[in-house]
Amino acid sequence: MAGSKRSQPELRQDPITGEWVILAGGRGKRPHAPEPAPAKDQPDEECPFCPGREERTPPEISARRDSGGPDSPGWTARVFPNRYPILVSEDRPAGPPAGAKRAPAAGVSEVIVDSPAHDKTPWELGSGQVLTMLEVYQERIRALAAGGEIRYVHIMRNHKAAGAASLEHSHSQLFGMPFIPTLVDVELDGFAMAEQGRVTCVLCEELRREEEEKVRVIAATDNFIAFCPFAARQPYEAWIAPRGHEAHFENCADTPELAELMTALLNRYRERLGDPPFNYWIHTYPLHSELRPFHWHLEILPRLTIAGGLELGAGMWVNTVAPEEAAAILR
Amino acid sequence: MAGSKRSQPELRQDPITGEWVILAGGRGKRPHAPEPAPAKDQPDEECPFCPGREERTPPEISARRDSGGPDSPGWTARVFPNRYPILVSEDRPAGPPAGAKRAPAAGVSEVIVDSPAHDKTPWELGSGQVLTMLEVYQERIRALAAGGEIRYVHIMRNHKAAGAASLEHSHSQLFGMPFIPTLVDVELDGFAMAEQGRVTCVLCEELRREEEEKVRVIAATDNFIAFCPFAARQPYEAWIAPRGHEAHFENCADTPELAELMTALLNRYRERLGDPPFNYWIHTYPLHSELRPFHWHLEILPRLTIAGGLELGAGMWVNTVAPEEAAAILR
Repeated sequence: MAGSKRSQPELRQDPITGEWVILAGGRGKRPHAPEPAPAKDQPDEECPFCPGREERTPPEISARRDSGGPDSPGWTARVFPNRYPILVSEDRPAGPPAGAKRAPAAGVSEVIVDSPAHDKTPWELGSGQVLTMLEVYQERIRALAAGGEIRYVHIMRNHKAAGAASLEHSHSQLFGMPFIPTLVDVELDGFAMAEQGRVTCVLCEELRREEEEKVRVIAATDNFIAFCPFAARQPYEAWIAPRGHEAHFENCADTPELAELMTALLNRYRERLGDPPFNYWIHTYPLHSELRPFHWHLEILPRLTIAGGLELGAGMWVNTVAPEEAAAILR
Repeated sequence: MAGSKRSQPELRQDPITGEWVILAGGRGKRPHAPEPAPAKDQPDEECPFCPGREERTPPEISARRDSGGPDSPGWTARVFPNRYPILVSEDRPAGPPAGAKRAPAAGVSEVIVDSPAHDKTPWELGSGQVLTMLEVYQERIRALAAGGEIRYVHIMRNHKAAGAASLEHSHSQLFGMPFIPTLVDVELDGFAMAEQGRVTCVLCEELRREEEEKVRVIAATDNFIAFCPFAARQPYEAWIAPRGHEAHFENCADTPELAELMTALLNRYRERLGDPPFNYWIHTYPLHSELRPFHWHLEILPRLTIAGGLELGAGMWVNTVAPEEAAAILR
């Protein structure tokens, strides 16, 4: 049971709730950006994500480039396996075995460096860079779908140290899981439950209501609505959802329009709220699943408060800024 | 929709997941301890929780005293309504109305000042003070049960600013809810599911397994086991559970023994882990509920890492310290 033996991540199931935890013993060893963060106006000479230091990361899986070959500069976005994976590809069963309480933490952990500039996020570089990032997201989901072993692809960003980012250079993360994670499962159940006795999807209905009531809408474009959700969990939480009923993010053809909207919204956080730490993630449809109702969306959760024993112990979120007020500020 | 109109807290339901969020607009105004925290070796002259400043809090609901009358010094523990409540007693429906998506945030928010010393926690003062605290917890649950309107009493502690404590003076918090909160509901479902095809309670079985395997046990007394759970969500997470199958914490008669065990364990966090921020809470049986299987327990969750988009967006906890290693350090 020594630490050295436990380098392979492991999934363990809570015997009461049935929820799975990732036990990743080697993860405490990953490098952290020094605190306070280095000055942002010059590249950090130690940054392994900067162009020209490709040899400091595992070999790339995919890249968008203006020039150069694999693992050399010239890229605008670059994907490689996480050097400190919490889901690993060595063992790949179809999912946690039925009845078992532990399983290898099988899956895929990838880093998506989505900006070639050390000190600039994609939305600071502009909507062209955000579009590149979104196209890489879609490409990776399609590639992992082709493999057949991954059941869900979770794409997310941790922005700033207080948002759990461990390196300053702008990046997204991807986790390919051989199971459907808890919160997506809860949403799948929610969409299915809400469908009973209704003609439309619950999120389609919600989007129509938001357009009618207007107070929580941040921006509405031809194909998307950005809004602060009615039951926002945290101050300035925002969602972007397509107007059209589409389960799969990777099938979205309006990525240029989505990139424009995301760029505008994320820059408003920066300009109007002083660039707060946040997380965003995409909730999309599982791979290789039977047909169930779902409507993909992007959730942005600013990290302006610290969760306590009410949130963590009872599961009750407390939000001190009404979404109507938040939307007025982000509009 | 102005801020001034929204001073009454409100419950709002997520249309997809069905989960309730507390929207507490006035809560951003509560006082926070200055950062960095004041030196701990002298009372903070501004602390509203210190003896002699009883007039700075709402009138007390209950107290344990060596001397003095209500709202005067001489107490060892003191309970009063939270001045910045997130659940309020003005409106008290039986629960969120069926089918509604919003409701008044009805309920009870109480502060339990569980130490008369500004700079000492109950476990630093000793097991006698921890026993006083536990007896007040039990007394408040019994008092709220008598009222008939509260369905669940959530008792919890936020330790240190990084654990979401807003004032330095040692205190616990109590939330009386007219509904069963999400995470207790999930556990109730889990106990019921696990009971199918079994003769004993899933936590009884788990405690027996922990005693057999020994590697995750921190301490075992006549009536309690303190252990790091098999699927610990965070480094050094620990639970205390009674060996006897008992659903109701407030019926526990072995509080002196529990106080000794809690005092020893919480002092080990202080001595061996450098007094980390943590939250603890008691998961106990709802009030006025039909008979369902449950086994009360205390959960202690240290706050040594920051949750990111995997935890918040997918509901997957990542733990970098195996519970077997954590128990060896806390033993």
